[in-house]
Amino acid sequence: MPKKVLIQLDCDPQPSTFDAIVAVDAGVDVLLRHGGVTVENVVPLVHGGMFTRGGGDLASTAIFIGGADVAAAERVAAKVRSAFFGPVRLGVLVDPSGANTTAAAAVVAVGRHGAIAKGVATPTRAVVLGGTGPVGQRVARLLAGQGAHVTVVSRSRDRAEAVTRRLQETAGVAASALETVEHQGGCLADSAFARVIAAADVIVAAGSAGTVLLDAAGRRAAVNARVLIDLNAVPPSGIEGVSAGDKARSDGAAVVYGALGVGGTKMKIHKAALGRIFTKTDAFLDAEELLAIGAELEASR
Amino acid sequence: MPKKVLIQLDCDPQPSTFDAIVAVDAGVDVLLRHGGVTVENVVPLVHGGMFTRGGGDLASTAIFIGGADVAAAERVAAKVRSAFFGPVRLGVLVDPSGANTTAAAAVVAVGRHGAIAKGVATPTRAVVLGGTGPVGQRVARLLAGQGAHVTVVSRSRDRAEAVTRRLQETAGVAASALETVEHQGGCLADSAFARVIAAADVIVAAGSAGTVLLDAAGRRAAVNARVLIDLNAVPPSGIEGVSAGDKARSDGAAVVYGALGVGGTKMKIHKAALGRIFTKTDAFLDAEELLAIGAELEASR
Amino acid sequence: MPKKVLIQLDCDPQPSTFDAIVAVDAGVDVLLRHGGVTVENVVPLVHGGMFTRGGGDLASTAIFIGGADVAAAERVAAKVRSAFFGPVRLGVLVDPSGANTTAAAAVVAVGRHGAIAKGVATPTRAVVLGGTGPVGQRVARLLAGQGAHVTVVSRSRDRAEAVTRRLQETAGVAASALETVEHQGGCLADSAFARVIAAADVIVAAGSAGTVLLDAAGRRAAVNARVLIDLNAVPPSGIEGVSAGDKARSDGAAVVYGALGVGGTKMKIHKAALGRIFTKTDAFLDAEELLAIGAELEASR
Repeated sequence: MPKKVLIQLDCDPQPSTFDAIVAVDAGVDVLLRHGGVTVENVVPLVHGGMFTRGGGDLASTAIFIGGADVAAAERVAAKVRSAFFGPVRLGVLVDPSGANTTAAAAVVAVGRHGAIAKGVATPTRAVVLGGTGPVGQRVARLLAGQGAHVTVVSRSRDRAEAVTRRLQETAGVAASALETVEHQGGCLADSAFARVIAAADVIVAAGSAGTVLLDAAGRRAAVNARVLIDLNAVPPSGIEGVSAGDKARSDGAAVVYGALGVGGTKMKIHKAALGRIFTKTDAFLDAEELLAIGAELEASR
Repeated sequence: MPKKVLIQLDCDPQPSTFDAIVAVDAGVDVLLRHGGVTVENVVPLVHGGMFTRGGGDLASTAIFIGGADVAAAERVAAKVRSAFFGPVRLGVLVDPSGANTTAAAAVVAVGRHGAIAKGVATPTRAVVLGGTGPVGQRVARLLAGQGAHVTVVSRSRDRAEAVTRRLQETAGVAASALETVEHQGGCLADSAFARVIAAADVIVAAGSAGTVLLDAAGRRAAVNARVLIDLNAVPPSGIEGVSAGDKARSDGAAVVYGALGVGGTKMKIHKAALGRIFTKTDAFLDAEELLAIGAELEASR
Repeated sequence: MPKKVLIQLDCDPQPSTFDAIVAVDAGVDVLLRHGGVTVENVVPLVHGGMFTRGGGDLASTAIFIGGADVAAAERVAAKVRSAFFGPVRLGVLVDPSGANTTAAAAVVAVGRHGAIAKGVATPTRAVVLGGTGPVGQRVARLLAGQGAHVTVVSRSRDRAEAVTRRLQETAGVAASALETVEHQGGCLADSAFARVIAAADVIVAAGSAGTVLLDAAGRRAAVNARVLIDLNAVPPSGIEGVSAGDKARSDGAAVVYGALGVGGTKMKIHKAALGRIFTKTDAFLDAEELLAIGAELEASR
């Protein structure tokens, strides 16, 4: 068996150390790390992996696509896919900024509490706060793909609508768009935001570090919520009252998860996905495939 | 025994994954990969390899020089050689764009069919189509070095003449220059090109991907050819009728080779060369030395 | 035990091969090498190391900070230290340009001959020639920290004074500043420089390659010197009459060391320091800590 070589294609100038170390711990023998990867320079890097090992040995080379700029990484991922030709392909894992594995882990956590009921008359109502960021967009896509009615919330209604349009166009899933409402503590004034929060079965906060997306008044208003997940690891919490370490902690009628509480599942999905791309050369693992891996891991717990 | 460390010096911004994986498969333990290597920044990278391990351990560090820009790689190679001093040297393999190993493998294939007869009254007549590119130049140099009378063919006579002058100046070998003739299918009109093709014992096509260098009419005109080699791996073929997978396939009176047919020998030479630079710290392997390695491998088949 | 991962953060565009190979030989399993590291881009590289491995496994990830620009590396080192939070830290070794390990090794060599007498009425008089460079500054700091009275000598009095001010401000140690005197062979004219050299117990030359800092006349003037160390490895010698290979060679009343004579100790300190940062996650090894490691190694000889 030849050594397992992972070609790490990162769109940031400096390739991620996080992704590299996870790969090492998942059993990769050799990392070929590249920063500053673009659609212009990626093709020879892919061909170099395709034309060095033949037959069964081809499965010992695989590709990871990462970086903080998720849109750039998606363009690179599309270019990588089109660089393959004939029967020669390499397994590919796409996880820029950890967005795909994090979103998959969050949706696995939601599903763990039966909060998504597919094909029922009244679909699960899910709210994604900070829904225009890389993780938020994927959480929205995966939840909608599972049959939930998703509302994407952002400070900017324009950005939220751009995301819902994109979800419709690229993934064929419907979602609503909403902007947050500024308020001065105490309680939420009557508003579309307040009504959506009150009706929500599931709330996921996926904003940037340091931003409170649902304060104490908002949390109190979430009277129907069964699952609340805050994906922000750095204080203050994105959802007031949720700690990074929370993992299925009961909080009134709801269970709550913090970033670290979801992190274990995320890491398991990440490592299982790395295993997969070294087994199947036709694996191309994006958010949906990672959710499927998460569901398999969950089923075998 | 310390780990085998290969310092991969690549003149492209992104160092080659191909060269890296071949090195891993040839037994290198640690790759130190550098892109964007120039004559200005290479010296400390070489000194870092020279001054870390002493005595017999020095042979466990070696240098690979690559990149798509062959002229840049040659300047770097010259700088690396001059960066050595005293008895402290590292084994060096120079193979930008795979040009040296490919050219060596092509010339090994030619020799396999007895097509080069050294020191005879009538030297072998060899034609190198696309002879101004990196591989073509080296094929021309190696064939001329073996005693063949080589004609370097290019779309531009000026470029072809520049190459033959360079061969004379740097390698001390004589070659003729010729430009291709545009023609409209059917048959080659009477021209210098047609006469050279008709007289050729050996024809090697080393043009860029997607360019037909010898079409069906040209192939028919090559009535004396004993060996035809097309080094282009991407359709259409550089020599019409030759497939990438051809390996000593009989085609009339000639045998023909495609890129993959030569590729196995190229890979063997590449790996043997990597073995050599970890054995002899004074090894400096350029096209001629790689041809010698190819000849040794051939003799021991 | 997970693999030992060293994150090599280098401020030069091309990360050092020297530092990489020493790390490999010290038992590091995986190198994550980064060039062009700055205070702007270093934080995610550190966080990637902090958040991938938990508990006892954290000690299998460590950080090396290097590069030719010592001031830039020190800024990066400060940024790395501030990127840690909570109890999660990684062992760090700071050795830009080898300045810290070299300076520590030089001071260990000085101490070997009893030349530094701490807390005595008349402190050891040490002169650091080329004292404004990265190695020279650290030698001055370490010697002053050991209780010596240090004179920092440079061609420019302004630069020498800037260094002594900086030593006072950052390390709280006092040192004198002096400029060299141009002279025409034969003997040193009466000058402050001549008097300082005549009075010196210890002289360390730490200038750039190819510069003679103490010529034959200067060497003759050093009548009280017990230890002379020339850290320049490339001819001509920084101190006339000292060879790179000298290691405690007697030269009149003094013992002399050249760069290679100090180099063995430097390498031992470097490797022991790499071992240390993989043992203690709170290790942050700068010049002083490296000198302490050198002293331990010396005591256990």
